[in-house]
Amino acid sequence: MRTRIDDPADARLDDIRDLKHSDAREGLVYAEGPLICGRLVESRFPVRCVVGFGGRLDSFLAEHGEQLAAGIPVYEVSRPVLAEVAGYDMHRGLLAVADRPAPMSVGDVIAGARTLLILEGVGDHENIGSMFRNAAGMGVDGVLFGAGTADPLYRRSVRVSMGHALRMPFAHLPGTVTTWQRSLDELRDSGWRLVSLTPAETAEHLADALVDATGAPWEKVALLVGGEGPGLTEHAMRATDIRARIPMAPGTDSLNVATSAAIAFYERQRSLR
Amino acid sequence: MRTRIDDPADARLDDIRDLKHSDAREGLVYAEGPLICGRLVESRFPVRCVVGFGGRLDSFLAEHGEQLAAGIPVYEVSRPVLAEVAGYDMHRGLLAVADRPAPMSVGDVIAGARTLLILEGVGDHENIGSMFRNAAGMGVDGVLFGAGTADPLYRRSVRVSMGHALRMPFAHLPGTVTTWQRSLDELRDSGWRLVSLTPAETAEHLADALVDATGAPWEKVALLVGGEGPGLTEHAMRATDIRARIPMAPGTDSLNVATSAAIAFYERQRSLR
Repeated sequence: MRTRIDDPADARLDDIRDLKHSDAREGLVYAEGPLICGRLVESRFPVRCVVGFGGRLDSFLAEHGEQLAAGIPVYEVSRPVLAEVAGYDMHRGLLAVADRPAPMSVGDVIAGARTLLILEGVGDHENIGSMFRNAAGMGVDGVLFGAGTADPLYRRSVRVSMGHALRMPFAHLPGTVTTWQRSLDELRDSGWRLVSLTPAETAEHLADALVDATGAPWEKVALLVGGEGPGLTEHAMRATDIRARIPMAPGTDSLNVATSAAIAFYERQRSLR
Repeated sequence: MRTRIDDPADARLDDIRDLKHSDAREGLVYAEGPLICGRLVESRFPVRCVVGFGGRLDSFLAEHGEQLAAGIPVYEVSRPVLAEVAGYDMHRGLLAVADRPAPMSVGDVIAGARTLLILEGVGDHENIGSMFRNAAGMGVDGVLFGAGTADPLYRRSVRVSMGHALRMPFAHLPGTVTTWQRSLDELRDSGWRLVSLTPAETAEHLADALVDATGAPWEKVALLVGGEGPGLTEHAMRATDIRARIPMAPGTDSLNVATSAAIAFYERQRSLR
């Protein structure tokens, strides 16, 4: 279903119109560049269309053509046409658009999982994207969202995640800013060890928090991370089993939230060696 | 020496003119915002001037006035004047400008140090800044630059480093792209354990690379990190004692270089517990 389009006003390109100024329009999800487009067509997201320069489409379809469901339109455009439609010069020359599938349930995300990331109040799309990328790379099985956390399917999040926001299972915990923490009790009851990350000096060293008194790793660990600045709410931390810190030198700043989380993923993997 | 300036054309503001388009002009170093300005005036960098809104200057001088050398001019400006001079709206309302001091020697940087970071080919100012911030926070004593690495005193690096680029000792190793690695032999001869970070699957687990056969931490460790994408040159890695990797899940991407380095700093600190 490959079609060349030369008219920037063509309605078939409406999904990618004015992308610079409208993110996540009508709940659409965008993949940019060959790597992330490839991850999109391999994902559970229903692809609506693929748009790109001729050469980019050739190599993309050679690699991923069979993964693209029958009948999905592929639009070949020139660089000026793409720039005019999208509103900026997209030098990677390839993008794919998908609908959002039905949200996964919390049960689906935790089934079979050993390591989870739970986010509260992480509002920065770049941090969310980094965490999905690093989680995928270091053995995290799924992500759960408490309250106040930004959309991982926002265009910038997807891009920074290298497309792992499209692959990593995630779900939203039910409840409001002050009630979502009750879900944590249910997780604990089903055998999850809940670990809050915090810069507080009274917290345990991260390495100690991920193992039991005999030094053996906890079977199922959920790592909780709060937003840049305020961190986790006291309410959330009180609902966890232990508070863990990454030791910092005096007179320095706490780590970026995505960096802290990456260190926690590393330590969790290390404990399972 | 506080003076109010209302004329955007006043030559005393030339250090901060057109900042948006000219970074590191004439070798100047810029600190933006109260936190980083404070770190600048506490550093070895000779401050040339401090510029800001009235209220920002009041609180800054209350905290740091005594650290400011006598005779350093302090210019009070309004928000429109600052925006016109600098070329953009600087909402933090405070900046300080310094000259570059004489470069530190390699000997100065490594004297008394136990943990070093050595960079090769890291061209991204944001990554450099992140590495200085994380290095300062997690016990790294100094940074050495091989070839091809961007300026840590570039405005963006200083900002992302939270000012630690102004505090952390650093020096450039002598030599060219193909000869600087000889300096590594000298470091090894003086007792440094040289550890290359690489995603190669044949490399040792990072945790094993930082301890000797008995599990004791190496006394002096230098962590080598290469640029995003190519990583360390084979030439550099051959000059080190061991190649270390952070285990990654199959089908994922290697970590961002600053994230990898942060995990290595964490593991080094952990080995010294």
